[in-house]
Amino acid sequence: MRFALLGTGRISGWFARTCHDSGIAEPAIVYSRSQERGEEFARSHDIAAWSDDLDAILADPEIDAVYVASPIPAHAAQVRQALAAGKHVLCEKSLAVDLAEAEELVEAAKKADRVLLEAVRHIHDSAMETIRAHLPELGRIWSASFEMIQYSSRYDAFRSGTVLNAFNPELGISALADVGIYPLHAAVQLFGAPRRTAAMTLSLPNDFQASATVLLDCTSTVVTCRYSKVTHGVTPSVIEGEDATMTIDKIAEPSEIGLHYRDGRTRTLMSVPARRPGDTMTGELEVFAQLVEAHDVDHRFHAQTLAVQAIVDEITAQAGESAPPVR
Amino acid sequence: MRFALLGTGRISGWFARTCHDSGIAEPAIVYSRSQERGEEFARSHDIAAWSDDLDAILADPEIDAVYVASPIPAHAAQVRQALAAGKHVLCEKSLAVDLAEAEELVEAAKKADRVLLEAVRHIHDSAMETIRAHLPELGRIWSASFEMIQYSSRYDAFRSGTVLNAFNPELGISALADVGIYPLHAAVQLFGAPRRTAAMTLSLPNDFQASATVLLDCTSTVVTCRYSKVTHGVTPSVIEGEDATMTIDKIAEPSEIGLHYRDGRTRTLMSVPARRPGDTMTGELEVFAQLVEAHDVDHRFHAQTLAVQAIVDEITAQAGESAPPVR
Repeated sequence: MRFALLGTGRISGWFARTCHDSGIAEPAIVYSRSQERGEEFARSHDIAAWSDDLDAILADPEIDAVYVASPIPAHAAQVRQALAAGKHVLCEKSLAVDLAEAEELVEAAKKADRVLLEAVRHIHDSAMETIRAHLPELGRIWSASFEMIQYSSRYDAFRSGTVLNAFNPELGISALADVGIYPLHAAVQLFGAPRRTAAMTLSLPNDFQASATVLLDCTSTVVTCRYSKVTHGVTPSVIEGEDATMTIDKIAEPSEIGLHYRDGRTRTLMSVPARRPGDTMTGELEVFAQLVEAHDVDHRFHAQTLAVQAIVDEITAQAGESAPPVR
Repeated sequence: MRFALLGTGRISGWFARTCHDSGIAEPAIVYSRSQERGEEFARSHDIAAWSDDLDAILADPEIDAVYVASPIPAHAAQVRQALAAGKHVLCEKSLAVDLAEAEELVEAAKKADRVLLEAVRHIHDSAMETIRAHLPELGRIWSASFEMIQYSSRYDAFRSGTVLNAFNPELGISALADVGIYPLHAAVQLFGAPRRTAAMTLSLPNDFQASATVLLDCTSTVVTCRYSKVTHGVTPSVIEGEDATMTIDKIAEPSEIGLHYRDGRTRTLMSVPARRPGDTMTGELEVFAQLVEAHDVDHRFHAQTLAVQAIVDEITAQAGESAPPVR
């Protein structure tokens, strides 16, 4: 499968490497509005071609699929254009800026008879399968707490008075989009769409939403999602059942997964050296390739995308209802 | 200070031992409706007298104070009666069944010119002072998660079909009253009364509220309180700041408190052998004795009692709004 990569950010580089390593996909060309940035990215990621002409890329019959890794607000237009050109589309999370846009893009893919998949790396990672496979051993599951509490290196600059893009709310960036999305996707993947959402979000003086806690009522299980770009988390994510509790060191890229029984026994389900985000994109690429191979355009992952986007919209609405940020 | 103990439960035994060990208080007499139970309790806890006549106990001028450790629904009548008899009152948590009753009892104490203190052992424990003293080292605090997730030994019987008192909702018992009260008191003690509360409670088929997660918006900090009597928690309580995160092994009776800096350095603030609940009641006894000594009937701990009771009422109201328990 020959991919056109849209975007030259860090995640696009990880995806290029994932393709090279996969044996099933080739990063054939990279698109950038800047020829210079495109060339630099192509050369440093072993990609044969680059271009600033998206129409020409999409008109190329040698290109099978498009990987969209532009800023979130730019996703919709590029996804629509790629689908209209007959390409399959793997689009970085979040697919859309809100639920209405996400629903429109899913419908557009079905009408175009092409595969559209949101690239949510951890739900397609083999570690998620390990987690799911062992849930029955926990007994009835009452609660879970999924965390992604990561102090951003860019926050040092913010505290010194310089607002870098990573903390600029006008670019559609937030702790929710950057890190919160991981615990939310894990919750929906494992426990289904919630029937209620309660969120409390805290913002920086420039209105950047920096930290939040979200409760999801998943009928028989309450899931807490905690995320932040301004503090340093030290506790694992946990799933608590009547017979045992499961711990997951990092919900976005697990390397240690354990079972803790009430009698004190423990059991290691996964233990590998710490993984980087770029090490966990193979699953999503393989799932995408399988969907394309099966020409499964109306697949089950659309429901996951839409359920999480509905939660994101609800969190955003509740943040708007909150008192103004503490200054 | 000579105490009359009202109640012969386990916690009353711990209080008797705390008095004996304190050098400032004496458990002079124990009240029980059953002479037999009173005698047995008195003999096994080195108490000289027992009685089933509460009026006579309260009429005794040799009794300075009353420790109320009856079931929560019985607190109000006994507290009123003791205050009316001119005794100071140390009453086990929760003082009252709802905010209106708590406010009435606080007013009754002020009118009677006697000290009334809710016995909330961990907020008067020296470990809480250790926690508070080191909060400035965390930098701006964005979030905290306080947990008391303790599988009750009585739940094995419930699962086998026998509903013991510990899981009987008709006795005013719940995970909130038994264990949830500890994280809530810690949150209010450290971060103040919340401006919003969001709670999700799960119940057993007999409507016993067994597990819940509560979000508290404490203005500049969001505190998550998680508690359960049906699962086994393995993670510590945490307080997350911009410069460091504090971990507390058990919020109700800390024995390990640590600081974790972003650069990986750690610092131990407290490390002692695991403590039992009965080992942590000295602080509340000392505070009560100081309030009596100072005759401070309008003291600052009333605000803590009322703030937590307001949260409890809100959790109860939100639990009532939830969908019915999953059967």
